[in-house]
Order: sequence, then structure tokens, then C-alpha cells
Amino acid sequence: MNPQSDVARLLRDASSIQLIGHISPDGDAIGSSLGLAWALRTMGKVARVACADPVPRNLLFLPGATAVRQRAIAGPSLVVAVDCSDERRMGSAYDAQMLAGRPLLVIDHHESNRGFGDVNLIDPQAAATAQIVLRLVEHLGVPLNATIATCLLTGLITDTQGFRTPNTSSGVLADAVTLCDAGASLTEIMDQSFGRSPLCKLRLWGSVFERCKLEDGVLWTEVSRQDIDRAGASSETLSGLVNYLATIDEAQIAVLLEELPNNRVDVSLRARPGYNVAVVASALGGGGHELAAGCQVSGTLAEVRAMVLEALAEQMLARA
Amino acid sequence: MNPQSDVARLLRDASSIQLIGHISPDGDAIGSSLGLAWALRTMGKVARVACADPVPRNLLFLPGATAVRQRAIAGPSLVVAVDCSDERRMGSAYDAQMLAGRPLLVIDHHESNRGFGDVNLIDPQAAATAQIVLRLVEHLGVPLNATIATCLLTGLITDTQGFRTPNTSSGVLADAVTLCDAGASLTEIMDQSFGRSPLCKLRLWGSVFERCKLEDGVLWTEVSRQDIDRAGASSETLSGLVNYLATIDEAQIAVLLEELPNNRVDVSLRARPGYNVAVVASALGGGGHELAAGCQVSGTLAEVRAMVLEALAEQMLARA
Repeated sequence: MNPQSDVARLLRDASSIQLIGHISPDGDAIGSSLGLAWALRTMGKVARVACADPVPRNLLFLPGATAVRQRAIAGPSLVVAVDCSDERRMGSAYDAQMLAGRPLLVIDHHESNRGFGDVNLIDPQAAATAQIVLRLVEHLGVPLNATIATCLLTGLITDTQGFRTPNTSSGVLADAVTLCDAGASLTEIMDQSFGRSPLCKLRLWGSVFERCKLEDGVLWTEVSRQDIDRAGASSETLSGLVNYLATIDEAQIAVLLEELPNNRVDVSLRARPGYNVAVVASALGGGGHELAAGCQVSGTLAEVRAMVLEALAEQMLARA
Repeated sequence: MNPQSDVARLLRDASSIQLIGHISPDGDAIGSSLGLAWALRTMGKVARVACADPVPRNLLFLPGATAVRQRAIAGPSLVVAVDCSDERRMGSAYDAQMLAGRPLLVIDHHESNRGFGDVNLIDPQAAATAQIVLRLVEHLGVPLNATIATCLLTGLITDTQGFRTPNTSSGVLADAVTLCDAGASLTEIMDQSFGRSPLCKLRLWGSVFERCKLEDGVLWTEVSRQDIDRAGASSETLSGLVNYLATIDEAQIAVLLEELPNNRVDVSLRARPGYNVAVVASALGGGGHELAAGCQVSGTLAEVRAMVLEALAEQMLARA
């Protein structure tokens, strides 16, 4: 949308910058925000990172992660939305009244992003927002160091599920080489991202694996608050589960329904190429990519399950 | 051991070459053998690949995989053991009487390899034998093509568990970039290696997750023939399971005991850095690396479990 030079000028002109990652932050939201914040600090800027929801436990090893606040601070000269496909994805970290009049820069790689900022740096070709930030840091002339590289490599690795998503080009691997050579530890990041799970996760996933159902190419499972509590686990424990379900040969579409407090259900959808679960998620008030989307819906597990499976059956029919 | 130039001369001088991968072949044994075979064919050689056990289903996409035979053919001018840490690892694919007098070249990356060939190309620094083969192909002046690159990238990706093992240096990623740029599809290889599982695997793993036991830092589980049959699965379904168990926070050592026919048990061991399960595996007639080793032991599941857990308890004490 806007050229990188506009973005660079905006950042150079700002003295204090508030970065905001998306709600339910993942490795790319946190890694890209922190990576850019560290780069801006080497340029003499005051840079702060906010996220409406807490930083997940397995990302707390990132430099600066414990200093992430849940709300933006008043008075920055510039606000940057990082990895947010629309304004709502900033959640309560963005207070429109408090930040009125502050220019908003959007840096993102989601295809659905319509450019809700005053200036927009959006590249749907990028496998992660971290790749866009890496290009930007290079353009700004900031030398990469281990701190910046660790944050960005984490974004790249988590968003590509460890270089496993179909958009992992050899350019993504080449960027990873650049970041490793700047001091990021591939081993540590892989280990933090995928190599550590509590035993309660093993138990919870085990029970899910045993009870999930396959119906007409849709592999679905639901997890109640009681299931989570009984395993001594938390919602975070379910991270990655739907991606794993999507690897099952017999499944064209994988669905994870998680009961939330207040009679709501979190719905995660994954599909094989050729399907479009973003359509289903959007119809239910959510969004995402064609092959990976989600939404939160009011109702009981049984009610939401019926709603989602019906919408998916139409998807399957539309393709058949 | 021997310089690359000796190895190159040996290969250049041979007209027909029999390559042999190890028993229970993995992606590196098959990928490195096939990758080298295709390179040798472009040099005008007759090259054949053998492996005592069948090529696993998820490697059958590799060019030439369906032509792999279970025994070496008589009369080659050179035999090459690929990814075999000792002579026994060639199993019944190598017939010492039939191949008597034929020079043996060993290409491998296992630290325990003492160099059992007439000429040996062994580099324990390599993350996979595929990396050694890549260097050799470059040294031979054979231009990489998509066929060779696909085989070698599969070896690299499977032996590093998708770039997740601690020996995955930025050099490994750089080699992956080279192989992708030569035409290998990272996406296809990742998908074939990690992105597809039958539903029966999900069920079997689920039951294992629910029943595995944690005792003094050792997370262990056992799988009977009945468990496998009941799930409609096969031994192949257990591939990767022990690696997954080793990611559990509470586990210092992970153990998978699989009942085999004929009153034998296959034992797979994984450890966190600081432990040495190769010692335990060697004492029981097997071998491997410090952090990943295995053996096959006669006895019932209960007998072998008692034996293994006792030996591991000593390991844990030795370190404490």
C-alpha cells in the first residue's frame, strides 16, 4: 500500500512509538512487535509494546516479553498495529479516545487486511509479519543483533509452524539463515516453540485424540471447561491442537470447539487446499485465512457445534 | 577418515555401484542413498539401492523409492553403506559372501561409527548423512537437479525432525536453501514427513498419551501388539512417538517399549542434554547417539521394561 520509504520516514520522525500486537497474541504478534521495538530503541526512540491479552508462557523467553503491557500508554507520537488484520484485533490495548489524533501505522501480512491505518505496510506474500519487519529494519539501516534477530526468528518460525506451512519459500529459509547468523538460536526458538509441553497437555490431547469424530471429511472435537480443569490444564494447552488434527489423512477440514466462560465457544478451523474456512468463520463473526480461520460464538458447545458443522457441510457440498 | 578426493576417485572408477541403507530405514537412509544414486546415474554409472526392510509409506514419494530392493545384487564394482553406523546395520541387504572382494565405502554421520569400510567418509558434525552426500555431489561436479535435491532435502529434514534437533546449524538451513533453489519442494517434503497421519495413529497415540507413566523423571510407555492391532495400525504408526514424549517438561528421559513378534521388545530412548542413553542402549545390545538411542531385547514387555527402567535409574543417579 504505502512504500517502505514512507513508513521509514514516519518511524524516523517519531520520538515515542506505541506498538500493539493482536488479541490472543501468537509468536508473530509478539516477536514482530518486540523485534521492531528493539530496532527502534537502537535508533534512540522510546518504544513500548502492548497486547490486550497476556504473553503466552512459551514466549516469555523473548527479550522484553515481560515488559509487554496490556494497554497502550497515552501520548505516543505514533501508534503501530503489528500483525493485526483489522482494528478490532487490537482489542482493549487500543483506546481510540486516548490515542485520538495519533497517526496509526499498520504492519501486517494478512490477506484480509484492508489497510485501516493512516500509513499501511501490508504484504500478503510474507509468510509472517516478522519478514516484513526484517525488510523494514534493513531499510532503516539498523544493524541486526541477537536481540532483534531472536524476536523476528520466533515470529517466522511460529507463523510457519516451524517452516511447515505451504507459504514457506526458500526466501523464508534464507531469512532464517540471516537471523541465525545475526545471533538468534534456532535450537532455542524451536525448543521454546515446539519442544516443551507440560504433562497435562499430553493427557488432555490424549483424551481429545481418543474421542474426536470424523464425519464426511470433517474431523471435529470439543473441549469443555471441565475437560481442561480435570487435566489441570489451561486454554493455552490447546494451542497447536487443531493444526495437528488437520494433518490426519481422512480429514479435509479440522474443527476444534473450546468452551469459554460466559456461554461462549471458541471455534478454530483448518482446511486442506481447495476449501475455504474463512468464509465460514466470517459468516459467524470471525475471520482468518482460507485454510486457517476462527471465530467466537455465543451458545453451548452442542449449539455451536451444530451451527458450525452445518455451515461446513455446505462448504463441502459447494466443493463437491 | 579418508579425504573426499579418495572417495570421489573410488566412485569415478566404479561402473556399477550398490548402495545399502540401514535396517528400519528412515528418511536419511533412503534419501541419502537415492540422492547419491541419482547423482551417480548422471555420471553414467549403474546405481542400485537396497535396504533390508521395506521403504516406509511416507517415503514412497521419493524418486526411485519403489525400485529399492531388499537385497544387494551380485557383481557391483563398489558397495556403499549409507547412514549405517556399523556393518550389522546393513542387515540382510548385505551378503558378505556374495559381495566378498568388492570394495566397501562407508558414508555416515554417526559418532559411534568406527569406519568399517575400506574407504570411509564419516562426519559426526553433519546433522544428516544427506549433508555429507550434498558436499560429495558438489565435489564430484554433478549439477544438482530437482530429483537429487528432493532426496537429499528429505534426509536433512527427517533427521533434524524438521530443523528441530540441537545440531541444526544455520549451515543446515543454508543447505536447505541450496536444495530448494535446485528444485526440491520444502512444502511437499514437510507435508510427507510430518503433515500426514492416518486416523488410526491419532487413536493409538491418544491411548498412549493417556496411559504413559512418569517416574523419577523417566516418562515411559509400552505398546503391545494387541494395542496396535486394535487401533488398526502398524509399527510404522509409532514413528515419532518417542520424540514427542521427550518434549514433555517433566521428562528427563523418554522411553517407548514396543512389543515385537517372537518375544522381543523394541526399546527407543530419548534424553535431555546431560544424560546419555546410548550407554544404556549399548549395554542392552543396541546403540545410537547420547540423546537418542535404541535396542531390541528378548523378553516380555514387563521383563524388558524392568530391565530398562533399572538401567535408566542408574543413569539418573549417576548424573544426580
